[in-house]
Amino acid sequence: MKLTALPLSDLLAAFRSSEPTPGGGSASALSGAVGASLLAMVAGLPRPKGSNETELRRLADVGSRCSVLAIQLEAMIDEDSAAYDLVVGAFRMPKGTGEEKSARAAGIQQALRTATEVPLQVMRRCAEALGAAPVVAELGNPNASSDVQVAVGLLSAGLHGAHQNVEINLGSLKDADYVARVRQEVETLVNRQSLNRQSAIPDPPPPIPHQ
Amino acid sequence: MKLTALPLSDLLAAFRSSEPTPGGGSASALSGAVGASLLAMVAGLPRPKGSNETELRRLADVGSRCSVLAIQLEAMIDEDSAAYDLVVGAFRMPKGTGEEKSARAAGIQQALRTATEVPLQVMRRCAEALGAAPVVAELGNPNASSDVQVAVGLLSAGLHGAHQNVEINLGSLKDADYVARVRQEVETLVNRQSLNRQSAIPDPPPPIPHQ
Repeated sequence: MKLTALPLSDLLAAFRSSEPTPGGGSASALSGAVGASLLAMVAGLPRPKGSNETELRRLADVGSRCSVLAIQLEAMIDEDSAAYDLVVGAFRMPKGTGEEKSARAAGIQQALRTATEVPLQVMRRCAEALGAAPVVAELGNPNASSDVQVAVGLLSAGLHGAHQNVEINLGSLKDADYVARVRQEVETLVNRQSLNRQSAIPDPPPPIPHQ
Repeated sequence: MKLTALPLSDLLAAFRSSEPTPGGGSASALSGAVGASLLAMVAGLPRPKGSNETELRRLADVGSRCSVLAIQLEAMIDEDSAAYDLVVGAFRMPKGTGEEKSARAAGIQQALRTATEVPLQVMRRCAEALGAAPVVAELGNPNASSDVQVAVGLLSAGLHGAHQNVEINLGSLKDADYVARVRQEVETLVNRQSLNRQSAIPDPPPPIPHQ
């Protein structure tokens, strides 16, 4: 059964169980999906007075895009667990003969590549939604500004969590060109995220005023 | 129907919808519930060789506590949305006569207090689970270290997200003593979180090595 078809309560119990999936990879995709969904919600709230047509259209476009990103991130909750299971399966391939050993080594490399691609996609989607957050913060209903801040925290946790999973798999991949290419992209995504987060949303959260 | 009884897919659609609940408060509780669940999962994985009895017992205790915290945070997903609905309901109370006005004002203050208490509880639970993360990182299976890091990111997002919601409600509360007491506690929780995060888990995630 798909993880996303489970009642939330059962999914949380599955995260708690000592089965290896669902684990941090699926949790990162879930965090991103909730964050992107909150941005879509804020973009759909009644608009502040004085918004012009161009602004309203821009906000609606950004909101639609966040909905798409949320649905893609939702799919990655299951994809990440499936990718992990593939890796486990590959490690269990027979290794009696030389031929079996080669097939197993190739299977492991292929499975690790899939297990790298899924969290890399999670990083890309979280980064894109984080790029949309300043627009939602600027043009969306100001009464929902805390929802935007929560969304940024969740998307950031999703991006950094997926980063952990990319790094783990890269460490065992033998295709040096691929590894270098992914590391380059990951670095760009992480740096862009820091910039977006700094420019749009104060972090850490607003200082606590004293009485 | 309870939010936690919904299939995850439907819950995410509810976060995306332009209905005000579920919003950032429930999302913060969810983030904390997933984070605490991941810590419980890691604590339950087969232990590293060479662990002594005292360490195993300590890890098991911390794991059980994280399960309890996760279940409490799960309940707060619904409690936060219910508290928000109470506030909306109080604002809709009649305000024709002087007596009605007083009753409405009192109702709003009471509802705002509940809407402050729920995210404050979310902050406390997330902070406690964050305090457990260094123990899980130290004594748990090192193969799951990325799950611990993801958990810390999610608990931190939950704590900061809930902080946003506490602050919003404090701004409209008239009981100055209560407001001061909550602000004091919130400051302690946020500071403790920073310390725990710094001491146990590198943040930002490990630097990206270059080829």
